Amino acid sequence: MAAPVDQILEGNRRAIARLISQLENNQPAALDILVELYAHTGRAYLVGITGAPGTGKSTLVNELAKLYRAQDQTVAVLSIDPTSPFTGGAILGDRIRLKDLAGDPGIFIRSMATRGSLGGLARAAADAIKVFDAAGFEIIIIETVGVGQAEVEIARLAHSVIVVEAPGLGDEVQAIKAGLLEIADVFVVNKADRDGVDRTVAALKMMLDLTQDGPAKPSLHHGALLDISSPPQASAAETRWQPPICKTIATTGAGVDTVSEALAQHRAYQQSSGLLAQREQTRLMFEIEQILKERLLAGLMSKLSQPQLNAIVTQVTERQLDPYTAVETLLRLGEDHGS
Amino acid sequence: MAAPVDQILEGNRRAIARLISQLENNQPAALDILVELYAHTGRAYLVGITGAPGTGKSTLVNELAKLYRAQDQTVAVLSIDPTSPFTGGAILGDRIRLKDLAGDPGIFIRSMATRGSLGGLARAAADAIKVFDAAGFEIIIIETVGVGQAEVEIARLAHSVIVVEAPGLGDEVQAIKAGLLEIADVFVVNKADRDGVDRTVAALKMMLDLTQDGPAKPSLHHGALLDISSPPQASAAETRWQPPICKTIATTGAGVDTVSEALAQHRAYQQSSGLLAQREQTRLMFEIEQILKERLLAGLMSKLSQPQLNAIVTQVTERQLDPYTAVETLLRLGEDHGS
Repeated sequence: MAAPVDQILEGNRRAIARLISQLENNQPAALDILVELYAHTGRAYLVGITGAPGTGKSTLVNELAKLYRAQDQTVAVLSIDPTSPFTGGAILGDRIRLKDLAGDPGIFIRSMATRGSLGGLARAAADAIKVFDAAGFEIIIIETVGVGQAEVEIARLAHSVIVVEAPGLGDEVQAIKAGLLEIADVFVVNKADRDGVDRTVAALKMMLDLTQDGPAKPSLHHGALLDISSPPQASAAETRWQPPICKTIATTGAGVDTVSEALAQHRAYQQSSGLLAQREQTRLMFEIEQILKERLLAGLMSKLSQPQLNAIVTQVTERQLDPYTAVETLLRLGEDHGS
Repeated sequence: MAAPVDQILEGNRRAIARLISQLENNQPAALDILVELYAHTGRAYLVGITGAPGTGKSTLVNELAKLYRAQDQTVAVLSIDPTSPFTGGAILGDRIRLKDLAGDPGIFIRSMATRGSLGGLARAAADAIKVFDAAGFEIIIIETVGVGQAEVEIARLAHSVIVVEAPGLGDEVQAIKAGLLEIADVFVVNKADRDGVDRTVAALKMMLDLTQDGPAKPSLHHGALLDISSPPQASAAETRWQPPICKTIATTGAGVDTVSEALAQHRAYQQSSGLLAQREQTRLMFEIEQILKERLLAGLMSKLSQPQLNAIVTQVTERQLDPYTAVETLLRLGEDHGS
């Protein structure tokens, strides 16, 4: 039997699924495999896709995956769901989707639930992406359900981000667009056979025009301490990317080809402008920072005793100590023990 | 002029607003004030409210705040918005809401944008809550826009969590309910004058019944290292809280009184069962953990030089080094420098 690393590199589906589960469960042996796989990553193109509930995101992902398969590209889909422990995972994921592609070895679907902390999810998603990448999948689609901060995290994982809208979802959704403007590389207005599609497109255009002369796209790496700035790229700034707006009817597949073309253009634009390398660097810096925080915390905790911790938390609960001073105290205790 | 700490304790609105802004911007002087204020916190009751876009959450918050004011309780509302730097904050927040209460010193509305990292937002929200609490606000409502992981974070901040639903938002929203089941203490089906309200209520009831005999509510403190377990509480387990389902028409105010009654019952239940103290402990442990991670990272970074960091990130980008090994290398460099 081949070693796990070789099995993954050969694209063995069972080995892929097993490794991702082991990584989700923080198994140390799985991490060793991932470390070995890392040299084989960096070839896949990572597409993030997000949007409010009811926009038809899942159907669009389905159609986009089919289109890539028709172009003979291999596709992995990582679907991040707000599932609960009660329903046991994958509500929107594997169950109902991509029936047409069942049995096709060129596609792999995986759901991941948002049970733990967002940090934990981001790490698990980043790990799964590495496994797919090493296994040779050319396109990796990362899909999130829901709107909100999770989307910014997803944008950190992807090379191109699609934001899906649909007509007639009410004012609140219009407002949310504003929050997604800054992360969208491609807009899709799905359900384009519905009333109000032109209004939705016009509203998006207006918002995009408003930001035209505005400040440059903010960095996704806010507040990070690993602040390694790349040299300024005048050429990229001169020809700033204009997120195109694609109209689709995902249920019939209409317009999905325009989405894959927009993605191809965005990929080419990022490659020629050098922005892809920059984005890749930001992505990896963020990942390093997350792992670093977990490791540092684990290191400190290993130096402290449970009674020490209990005593401090009790003081905070009873308002004898504030959380910030508590942290300084814990750090000092860790240092004393370390020396 | 009174010192900032005294101004906050006296409920000076300008001082409150200023301090929250300073905390959002990580100003060290603001942190000193917060540390002094901490002993005066722990009196407010924290209500989280969440739900998908289009459920009418904001209107409900508005009405709930009015109701509490009519009962002579002071209310602070912290509205967490997915705004963008382009629109400059508070899309759904202060602008359109609570016009009826303008000029009432017993209410304070504050919006907070989800621009930075979620960790940063959670900390900023936790800090704002402390300021409101110290300033004497009796009820603090924390409202999020959107669905997804952010909600779990919000649940970590609150004593009672309201999940808002509405009829006719489509299948995807139905599915999302599953993810919110575990954090809901009170369900509200808003827009109860719409078709399909009974179906929505029935679907919620069914899901709640399904989980009746299921496992106990999962801890919100997944994967945390500060794992301080409280003594098991047999009495609480015997009389497990059944999240009530309230029907409202927030636009007319109908049914909003049932929501405040449900909240009062949940508060009383948690107090008598000892769960409130447990929840407060979990909340504060999570907060300590977040601050600890930031401080540890800052501590390590201060020991490393920019060229050292750059070299390692470059190796990771070029796939000569994987992120996990990179982290170990950074930790070792930090230790070498420290000793």
